[in-house]
Amino acid sequence: MTESPLFWPATLKGKTLFVLNETLIPKRLAYVKVRNTREAVNCIREMKTRAFGQFLVVLNTFLVELKNHPKATDQQLVSLIEKTAAALNKSRPTFPFAEVTSVVVGWAKQALSQKQPVRSIVERNTQGYLMGIRAKRLERVANIAKVIADGDSVLTHCNVSGELAMAAALCAQEKKRVQFFCTETRPYLQGAKLTAWELKRVGADVTLIADNAVGNVMARGLVNKVIVGSDRSCANGDFANKIGTYQIAVLAKEFGLPFYVLLQPSKKIKSGKDIPVEIRPADELLKFEGKKFINGNINGFYPGFDVIPHKYVTQQIAIDVRG
Amino acid sequence: MTESPLFWPATLKGKTLFVLNETLIPKRLAYVKVRNTREAVNCIREMKTRAFGQFLVVLNTFLVELKNHPKATDQQLVSLIEKTAAALNKSRPTFPFAEVTSVVVGWAKQALSQKQPVRSIVERNTQGYLMGIRAKRLERVANIAKVIADGDSVLTHCNVSGELAMAAALCAQEKKRVQFFCTETRPYLQGAKLTAWELKRVGADVTLIADNAVGNVMARGLVNKVIVGSDRSCANGDFANKIGTYQIAVLAKEFGLPFYVLLQPSKKIKSGKDIPVEIRPADELLKFEGKKFINGNINGFYPGFDVIPHKYVTQQIAIDVRG
Repeated sequence: MTESPLFWPATLKGKTLFVLNETLIPKRLAYVKVRNTREAVNCIREMKTRAFGQFLVVLNTFLVELKNHPKATDQQLVSLIEKTAAALNKSRPTFPFAEVTSVVVGWAKQALSQKQPVRSIVERNTQGYLMGIRAKRLERVANIAKVIADGDSVLTHCNVSGELAMAAALCAQEKKRVQFFCTETRPYLQGAKLTAWELKRVGADVTLIADNAVGNVMARGLVNKVIVGSDRSCANGDFANKIGTYQIAVLAKEFGLPFYVLLQPSKKIKSGKDIPVEIRPADELLKFEGKKFINGNINGFYPGFDVIPHKYVTQQIAIDVRG
Repeated sequence: MTESPLFWPATLKGKTLFVLNETLIPKRLAYVKVRNTREAVNCIREMKTRAFGQFLVVLNTFLVELKNHPKATDQQLVSLIEKTAAALNKSRPTFPFAEVTSVVVGWAKQALSQKQPVRSIVERNTQGYLMGIRAKRLERVANIAKVIADGDSVLTHCNVSGELAMAAALCAQEKKRVQFFCTETRPYLQGAKLTAWELKRVGADVTLIADNAVGNVMARGLVNKVIVGSDRSCANGDFANKIGTYQIAVLAKEFGLPFYVLLQPSKKIKSGKDIPVEIRPADELLKFEGKKFINGNINGFYPGFDVIPHKYVTQQIAIDVRG
């Protein structure tokens, strides 16, 4: 199976983490260099990476910092890891950074208390964690392909970091004829720039629509299934995903279409009302590709994510990413 | 009441019709000169004017052509009016051009058959028609203000050509505190550029949101009413309006919010399935402010309008624009 660049968008080479700059796709494939925690936080905050990419950046940043401190004592390494975790946790509010970083902090503390070498334990476990997630995501790609039948037309929103494109490639191998519709996903246009691009790249039949056209294509019967990702989930099945997902879920219900969500289960939060939702600067609404297109001082409200009640979800396609 | 420039966006001066170039707002207030039918059709097709502006352009184009042919016989004037009507009817598919032009053609033919002067009859009736519509629209502004209560937060979509801004001004005069949310309305951004601008211009409290954020603001309880316009309507109450209106109607139903539509009743078409919907060039989806932002050959589907079943409409705020 061809792997989409978005499937594994960050790779450690030596002491430098190379993170795919998703804001430049489809114009070019370029990578941001992350050499310390500060650069990692900036890369996340400026949304150069997003969704699953954040997970890779977080785990790899611990490895980068270990390399930046070759002579630290075990006690110093635990402090370093705690400091790194705290900084990463504050980078953006909705993605469950603390759920990932606390795993690494746990390893470090346990190693110290058991008088094991902190550096090698953390390195080995982090690598193992990453490889485990990789295997689980590949398995989920196969599970996505399973819910797509010959003749289906699948609507998606925003971008699910390579998994849908790879599932599309699997469907093609299995001789299923599948169509995809993707929303452009304003304000960041991840659908237009990432999803349309990566689906086309694997040879899938993909059609771009405005976020405004979801009701229209459903009313015309042009799609029969919805598949979206998630950035965070709750014990009761509520989940957070890119702004716009809520209304697509409501429309799927109204038109009787199955609504699938790629989920990472978490028990840390009971229900959706407890998920912190990032409110992005309103100014980003008045910009397109970084350039302001509206004069004047217009108020804007830009919640980055929707929290979707579990009642709208037909089926979770889940993987457990806890360490 | 302050009149919004969008309320009456075309004015005849001498032999030239000055049409507000809505694509340049809010950067500047500039007018396109329309001196003949060809220029009128181009102005409509390129969406320099839209919605109610089209109605003004159509009626005034007959006046322009009469002035361009000062020596035509009555028989020649009827042919001229028929030719002008045919060209205008073909300019865009969804707005009911033929319903407007057929009225003028009817006057001309009747005048000829009754041996009355075609020129003066058509001029007098057209002017009267325009003034009648103006009075009806001002009345509708008052009716919009009536459905808005103190403390309301109104969501709107696309742009209703001045009426909502003027209703907002009326509400302010009546000391009603009202908030407005407007969608940006991709791909043409009429909400961000026209609606936010004209509401702000009359001093209203307006907040811009992405088209993706409608479900979010409804789930948060930030809006309690929806008011949208219409481009065409049917005998059964189904109506056409800018792409995105259908999904807002579904969301209003899901969240139990009243959904008002500014309607021009028509009996010519039985139900929504018979409304011809304009499919705009997919390329317009890949452009922002006229500049292509996506490389590559991405398929797009861009229906210009939604057809909304009448079951979603809580109340019509109607005016009869038939001659």
